[in-house]
Amino acid sequence: MDVGALNALGYEDFLNIFGNIVEKCPLITAAVWSKRPFANMPALETAFYEFIDALPDSKEGILRCHPDLAGRDLQSGTLTPESREEQARAGLDALSSDEVSLMAQLNQDYKRRFEFPFVICAKMNDKATILRQLLERVGKDRSEERARGIEEVKKI
Amino acid sequence: MDVGALNALGYEDFLNIFGNIVEKCPLITAAVWSKRPFANMPALETAFYEFIDALPDSKEGILRCHPDLAGRDLQSGTLTPESREEQARAGLDALSSDEVSLMAQLNQDYKRRFEFPFVICAKMNDKATILRQLLERVGKDRSEERARGIEEVKKI
Repeated sequence: MDVGALNALGYEDFLNIFGNIVEKCPLITAAVWSKRPFANMPALETAFYEFIDALPDSKEGILRCHPDLAGRDLQSGTLTPESREEQARAGLDALSSDEVSLMAQLNQDYKRRFEFPFVICAKMNDKATILRQLLERVGKDRSEERARGIEEVKKI
Repeated sequence: MDVGALNALGYEDFLNIFGNIVEKCPLITAAVWSKRPFANMPALETAFYEFIDALPDSKEGILRCHPDLAGRDLQSGTLTPESREEQARAGLDALSSDEVSLMAQLNQDYKRRFEFPFVICAKMNDKATILRQLLERVGKDRSEERARGIEEVKKI
């Protein structure tokens, strides 16, 4: 999309196209629309980053809107199309039942410890690195993991 | 629900129950969960209000996540269950075709002028007062309408 067309979008079309840039958070997209005109597509990306960084209290909220990797939503087909494609690309839709159990256990440990889910940019990782990261990050401290999760959201 | 059960909810159950308190903004619910324990149910409501008031930049974003009243989403059945029930209770699912056209025209005028949709707490109004309010509020100024819209979101 060229930047002229981007800046000409009404907020409803803008929401239809970019509403799921941050999982289940069209609120962020709807607020970013106010920042038009954008100089170029990277400027749109920057506007999302700046908005997320400026949120005082809700960074953990953003993480909690993300589904478990290889979790119930993937099994039951209730993921957003964006998440399904991303998890499939990382091979998470073709795990053995042992791998599914291991992921589920680690996700649960992680959530019990941090009170938000493990978030990683699946499209930049495969299932082996995702499992390794999950094993490693479940031992970190909470503020470090919150910041790390938000950085992963930006990559997504 | 008693307050002990409320405070015992994990964030996933909390999101399942309260995720649509603010239309399409589970981010807000997910952030408010951090404020546990709540002294009582009104304290939960207050936590939502305080969070909305503290959002620096995204108040218009909240409004833009709301569907048009008696609009396309109602006609096509793509409203959230909460919104459908609310609009039905105000009689907005049983308008004549003239009334549908008038609402559509006024909604469009309103959005063109303010860059966010007309939001009113439908369950506290019937179709006659909603139409009257829409006619009146489309002539107000932008900052007044933004504040008014947010107050209506809180009533919803």
